[in-house]
Amino acid sequence: MYKLITTDGMAKRGSFDTVHGTIQTPVFMNVGTAGVIKGGISTVDLKKIKCQVELSNTYHLHVKTGDELIKQFGGLHKFMNWDGPILTDSGGFQVFSLTTLRKIKEEGVYFSSHIDGRKIFMGPEESMKIQSNLGSTIAMAFDECPHSRSSKEYIIDSVNRTTRWLERCKVHLHKLNSLDDTINKNQMLFGINQGGTFNDIRIEHAKTISELDLDGYAIGGLAVGETHEEMYDVIENVVPHLPKNKPTYLMGVGTPINILEAVDRGVDFFDCVYPTRNGRHGHAYTNHGKLNLLNKKHELDDSPLDEGCGCEACKNYSKAYIRHLFKSKEMLAGRLVSLHNLYFYNTLMEEIREAIEAGKYKEYKKNKIKNMIKLN
Amino acid sequence: MYKLITTDGMAKRGSFDTVHGTIQTPVFMNVGTAGVIKGGISTVDLKKIKCQVELSNTYHLHVKTGDELIKQFGGLHKFMNWDGPILTDSGGFQVFSLTTLRKIKEEGVYFSSHIDGRKIFMGPEESMKIQSNLGSTIAMAFDECPHSRSSKEYIIDSVNRTTRWLERCKVHLHKLNSLDDTINKNQMLFGINQGGTFNDIRIEHAKTISELDLDGYAIGGLAVGETHEEMYDVIENVVPHLPKNKPTYLMGVGTPINILEAVDRGVDFFDCVYPTRNGRHGHAYTNHGKLNLLNKKHELDDSPLDEGCGCEACKNYSKAYIRHLFKSKEMLAGRLVSLHNLYFYNTLMEEIREAIEAGKYKEYKKNKIKNMIKLN
Repeated sequence: MYKLITTDGMAKRGSFDTVHGTIQTPVFMNVGTAGVIKGGISTVDLKKIKCQVELSNTYHLHVKTGDELIKQFGGLHKFMNWDGPILTDSGGFQVFSLTTLRKIKEEGVYFSSHIDGRKIFMGPEESMKIQSNLGSTIAMAFDECPHSRSSKEYIIDSVNRTTRWLERCKVHLHKLNSLDDTINKNQMLFGINQGGTFNDIRIEHAKTISELDLDGYAIGGLAVGETHEEMYDVIENVVPHLPKNKPTYLMGVGTPINILEAVDRGVDFFDCVYPTRNGRHGHAYTNHGKLNLLNKKHELDDSPLDEGCGCEACKNYSKAYIRHLFKSKEMLAGRLVSLHNLYFYNTLMEEIREAIEAGKYKEYKKNKIKNMIKLN
Repeated sequence: MYKLITTDGMAKRGSFDTVHGTIQTPVFMNVGTAGVIKGGISTVDLKKIKCQVELSNTYHLHVKTGDELIKQFGGLHKFMNWDGPILTDSGGFQVFSLTTLRKIKEEGVYFSSHIDGRKIFMGPEESMKIQSNLGSTIAMAFDECPHSRSSKEYIIDSVNRTTRWLERCKVHLHKLNSLDDTINKNQMLFGINQGGTFNDIRIEHAKTISELDLDGYAIGGLAVGETHEEMYDVIENVVPHLPKNKPTYLMGVGTPINILEAVDRGVDFFDCVYPTRNGRHGHAYTNHGKLNLLNKKHELDDSPLDEGCGCEACKNYSKAYIRHLFKSKEMLAGRLVSLHNLYFYNTLMEEIREAIEAGKYKEYKKNKIKNMIKLN
């Protein structure tokens, strides 16, 4: 399903066939937590901003609207009117970051909903069941994302449990895919590598899960408080021990520079809330770094957010007008900058793919980063 | 400038030439208080939802972003990237409804800003100056909108002052239009009829202001607490005393049924915040009445907001999905329903124009209202 088209150093240029279309990698997945991109962005907009893959959150869809309802409706694709690939996370990250009163057991995690305090149990089978109900293209394995400052001893225990959970995920998803009323019988499974910043644990774990012959492999538990250098070091150490003929997904990362660096270390898939979160707060990504639109210097600036950008915001509106929208607390403000930021990320990935194809990735990366750090 | 194409009973079908294009009437102006439509709707969207005229608020643009800044930028058209007609209200209504510590004098009104309490003075000359700075297509005269429960004595005094203010507006706008650095030297002026629900005062005032040969005439001070029947009665009484060869504008009105009734009494221009305000709160206008999307019965409803509607929301999303967006407090919820509601209003006006042209307005109105009251 994954075809490695070419490489440039460690950078991979691939394509990944799914029942919902072929994904060109490296790719940035556009995050729509509750089955919708924040900032008032619809799936009609996604088509216009070069989005290839939409990512939704299992936890949020489960505790709010309910995956059973979405299954009854015909699945997430039909519900949100998106015919391209969708990746759903496993819920694990939210269970460990949003909820309170968690109890981790061998069978799974007992926790209270962050919405209404309702007691919920989620284990590998429950996570697979929810993702099967949603009918996403790619399901993520249910894992534990331990605190970045956990002891080595705790991390070893946790990673071993995550491996056992992964095996249960594989078995259970296989079973769900064979049921008559399953929405997407070709749902794929990505495993998740954990191990904090301990490279020895990470490498050992990467080797173990690689043997399970999954559809793809993610590196989880990064961008949770460690430095960028520690993160790059983990990626450099782990990637060589993950299958080269499968996509590698760096979960929840990150800034444009993080992405440029991670591609150079062999990563194919990315996702991050930065483009829309920053967009809603008036921070625009540009080829010369990040702009703060609330800055008074933009008050009369009739230039677009980023010269030469082809997005709806840049083709039609000035920094001055968008600043006015933020100052007036108007919804259009967040929408325009979120649209721009996602277009910026998706265009960056397009450029990255072209640079790898041309065999000029290192040079491209160097110039790109040099320009981006100008403003920051 | 106003051409009466045809009539059907009292209903007028006209066209109104402006420097920013010709307006086909009856028309609904889409309200963008602070130079932007609420609900995350851009001027690019306005082109798609059949908007002919955008309406902005003098008071909000003056106290927040500042009309001087917008003038420096080249005017409101350039600022918001809208090349069609813009009507600006005079600020009068907001001065009388939003501010505190008002003092009404012959020269104008002293009041405190609702944003920061700053003391501001606004009179006819100031309102014309601000609207000239904005460079709108049509400026509204500065008037007093008295409380609906004011005494007849107070209303007589107030209306007389409004007439004197109107004369000053006309003189001052004429002067501003002749200045070298004025953005729109063809800015037009509409006068405003007042008089509460006292038809004798209204009629007398209508006759007086008609003599001033303005570009258009508005009926103000309605939809402020009186019944629909009282409002229709005022319109029926006043319209015959306003020039037939000029557009008549019913300010701040109203529901689709209000509009259908007012057109039948000779009104050309309308504006109202209902489509976007209701849109943001999950209330959708349809040809069968108003829907509340928060209603549980829509939970699994895969039909669009209004069958046969050509708007982006109806062509792509179900009631169930939009309901989910409201329940999840996602920005896209308000955007989709606001887009739909404005499209609904603009399409209603299109139908109204066709029905008048066909000489079947009464029949059209009767059927339309019969269907609309089904759900309400």
